[in-house]
Amino acid sequence: MISTMTSREMERWGLFEITLEGPAEGNPYKDVSLEASFRYGHRTITVSGFYDGEGIYKIRFMPDTEGEWQYETKSGTAELNGHSGRFVCSKPGSGNHGPVRVKDALRFQYEDGTPYRPFGTTCYVWTHQDEALQRQTLSSLAQSPFNKIRMCLFPKRYSFNLNDPEHYPFAGSREGGWDGERFNPVYFAGLEARIEELQRLGIEADLILFHPYDKGHWGFDRMSAAADDYYLRYVIARLSAYRNVWWSLANEFDFMKEKTMADWDRLFRIVQEEDPYQHLRSIHNGTKMYDPSELSIYDHSKPWVTHVSMQYWELTPATAWRKLYKKPIVVDECCYEGNLPQRWGNITGEEMTARFWDGFMRGGYVGHGETYLNDEEIVWWSKGGRLVGESPERIAFLRSVLEEAPAELEPLEGFRDAPTVGVEGRYYLQYYGIHRPAYRELPLPEEASFRIEIIDTWNRTVTPLEGLFSGKTKVVLPARPYMAIRARAVD
Amino acid sequence: MISTMTSREMERWGLFEITLEGPAEGNPYKDVSLEASFRYGHRTITVSGFYDGEGIYKIRFMPDTEGEWQYETKSGTAELNGHSGRFVCSKPGSGNHGPVRVKDALRFQYEDGTPYRPFGTTCYVWTHQDEALQRQTLSSLAQSPFNKIRMCLFPKRYSFNLNDPEHYPFAGSREGGWDGERFNPVYFAGLEARIEELQRLGIEADLILFHPYDKGHWGFDRMSAAADDYYLRYVIARLSAYRNVWWSLANEFDFMKEKTMADWDRLFRIVQEEDPYQHLRSIHNGTKMYDPSELSIYDHSKPWVTHVSMQYWELTPATAWRKLYKKPIVVDECCYEGNLPQRWGNITGEEMTARFWDGFMRGGYVGHGETYLNDEEIVWWSKGGRLVGESPERIAFLRSVLEEAPAELEPLEGFRDAPTVGVEGRYYLQYYGIHRPAYRELPLPEEASFRIEIIDTWNRTVTPLEGLFSGKTKVVLPARPYMAIRARAVD
Repeated sequence: MISTMTSREMERWGLFEITLEGPAEGNPYKDVSLEASFRYGHRTITVSGFYDGEGIYKIRFMPDTEGEWQYETKSGTAELNGHSGRFVCSKPGSGNHGPVRVKDALRFQYEDGTPYRPFGTTCYVWTHQDEALQRQTLSSLAQSPFNKIRMCLFPKRYSFNLNDPEHYPFAGSREGGWDGERFNPVYFAGLEARIEELQRLGIEADLILFHPYDKGHWGFDRMSAAADDYYLRYVIARLSAYRNVWWSLANEFDFMKEKTMADWDRLFRIVQEEDPYQHLRSIHNGTKMYDPSELSIYDHSKPWVTHVSMQYWELTPATAWRKLYKKPIVVDECCYEGNLPQRWGNITGEEMTARFWDGFMRGGYVGHGETYLNDEEIVWWSKGGRLVGESPERIAFLRSVLEEAPAELEPLEGFRDAPTVGVEGRYYLQYYGIHRPAYRELPLPEEASFRIEIIDTWNRTVTPLEGLFSGKTKVVLPARPYMAIRARAVD
Repeated sequence: MISTMTSREMERWGLFEITLEGPAEGNPYKDVSLEASFRYGHRTITVSGFYDGEGIYKIRFMPDTEGEWQYETKSGTAELNGHSGRFVCSKPGSGNHGPVRVKDALRFQYEDGTPYRPFGTTCYVWTHQDEALQRQTLSSLAQSPFNKIRMCLFPKRYSFNLNDPEHYPFAGSREGGWDGERFNPVYFAGLEARIEELQRLGIEADLILFHPYDKGHWGFDRMSAAADDYYLRYVIARLSAYRNVWWSLANEFDFMKEKTMADWDRLFRIVQEEDPYQHLRSIHNGTKMYDPSELSIYDHSKPWVTHVSMQYWELTPATAWRKLYKKPIVVDECCYEGNLPQRWGNITGEEMTARFWDGFMRGGYVGHGETYLNDEEIVWWSKGGRLVGESPERIAFLRSVLEEAPAELEPLEGFRDAPTVGVEGRYYLQYYGIHRPAYRELPLPEEASFRIEIIDTWNRTVTPLEGLFSGKTKVVLPARPYMAIRARAVD
């Protein structure tokens, strides 16, 4: 729920909104300046307001500290200047853990310290579809294991996605021309409603700010630098107070030939400077995925990149990237489960599940997408709708296995031949993927006793071995793919 | 069959052998020099002889030109000097196409121009096993699709292979010490019999000259440079006249920490200089397989390397390596079909078959090995024996598909999203591997008519589509893995 000026109490990391009336003439998006300072003790945070059409101006704020906050607006326009007030920030409600932060080179966590592991999916333009379809998507997400969704602000024109949306971010039309200096508040109100619904479902909205699936059809992929910046500032002013927002500068940025690396750097820095809450920031590649030394790969070690959002069609480099970038590695696209003609869109549920396990067992994170053809041409990866694939319930199983594991879990590189995460001396989880050893020897510590379980990651079974084990232990396995072994020390 | 001095006629690429009696005292291996010049018209080839024990000296020669050859021996030892004679080199017998040569950056061919595509397997020390097991291996090979085998000259000590061989290349014993200056002719006679039997089966013997699976147990992996060179010259003098011999300088050379890159270069150059027939030369890596720019990878662009013999556990880089080295790429180890605990030895038959198809469809060649555990601990990859896996019959199917294809087949990189080989305008073969598109659009030329077949590479079926096709053609596929499409122009 969004609080407005009338609320005098606001949960921590909730959205506090000030609504003001002001001039509607001229171009208020451009002509009118508005900001507000929010003060807690000696600390002051200044946030930008925005014009919401029809003479309405808004300022949104996400308080991060419990206690009393005071605010005061500032504007060159008298009607909007000098509004002040106060509110009390209370404990966060149930399920509200604050925004997701990078904890260290391996991990994310919510601001309240709760561990967060991204189990993402992709529905690029689900918010550009009709209401019924958007409802169906939300209902599918509610039953899914996914806690992050990649989604585009701009509409998409691409195979299996040629329908025009009802609303666009900008005023105007394709036929009559866009007014790059005026936004469309109806579009943004719809988007914001979806972001809030995702928030209620515990899902992070990984917002893709630019993308190439336009090719000049609408032209949003080839606006001027000034227009890009103007758009970005408006988006940040409107959306950054939603705690579940992430910024993905672009999808497949390297396919956007109109922009240079310097453009991406500039856009990153605008986001970094404008967002008062420092939401997570990334950029996602198209090709150029093979070799981290490839020059055309965005250099994820730049300080404004919070984590690596990679597309990669195999799995091996997660370890290399972790060492190169020292930031959490999210393989946001690893091919999609489905049957499209394109290589990236036709892997099996087994393969998708294996890529999740493999990536997580190497200390990375993997994202999902689904691309099954159907008569309605409603493909999840683009429009949302229904999930029909075999991997989501297996991804849910992986998520449950990891949620039972210690938060300090890390990749253990001393284990050869199979990716392994664990906490030395306490917990080991080793995954074999397409490999199917008839047995494995686990080098367990001598000083502790372990329970061992054989996990079938595809059939979602956990089979405990009888007894307790210490030291080098031979574990006989069913010689079929997709097995894992878990060893947990007995307290 | 080996000809001796008494033969006056010899098939082209057969083995002509001169046997002489000489001194047995001292160390004839070291003390006695012997060579022979073979002359055809104005062309003279000088080959080294070797001591075969018991006062017997031999000189072996593989004639490459039909017609009359003359020879004369030369030695510092009077009894061996000045023996001369002549023989007539006749047409090669059936199935004798001469040694395999590199044809171009992509291809091998026999010296008579017959195309050769390596379909290799691996039985590292099958010639170090007992007679019955060697017979069984030969019988298995005879029924297999394999036309190349990787095999070691030195015995191997490794998991699942701890039995000692009956004979060793050197005189002496592990307990009593090896005489690094005397060889063991019994060992070599056994090996040569096997090379001849392989020859009769149409199988190239990819002889591994050094390997690390000794770790000082016998010490053959850590001999002095002088001892290495001495051994190498003897091996070449004995074996190079067998037309089906290839030289693999080492297996997993990078695990032999006692040797430097300079050692490998020197050994390569000895082989290059000593082998009168210039058999194929390669070297095989252990790890360091990921990145071709990795410094510790042997630089296969060196002039004495005829082709690339790579170990790699994934498939993608075949294309990159082809471009880097401009030599044929043989992925001689891509993991083995089986169920060993080790990662390299436990892939499924499906995966092995897919790796073959994928590699061949990228313009490379892939090698097989089998590693199923059994009570007798006779694992094919090491000792030979029986083949029990699921991939050999599928590899046979791939081989038959390729043998029906034009010899000019090459990777067609204009085809996106799935590796494709073909001859532009005439023939296309595209493979989908683990991907399973519901349909594909083939951009066939407009100017020709094509028959299209759907190939199930796992079930070994070829299903023709009805009719003829030209131009962009949509082909509906069963949406399951391991499918291929073949399109052949109608003459």
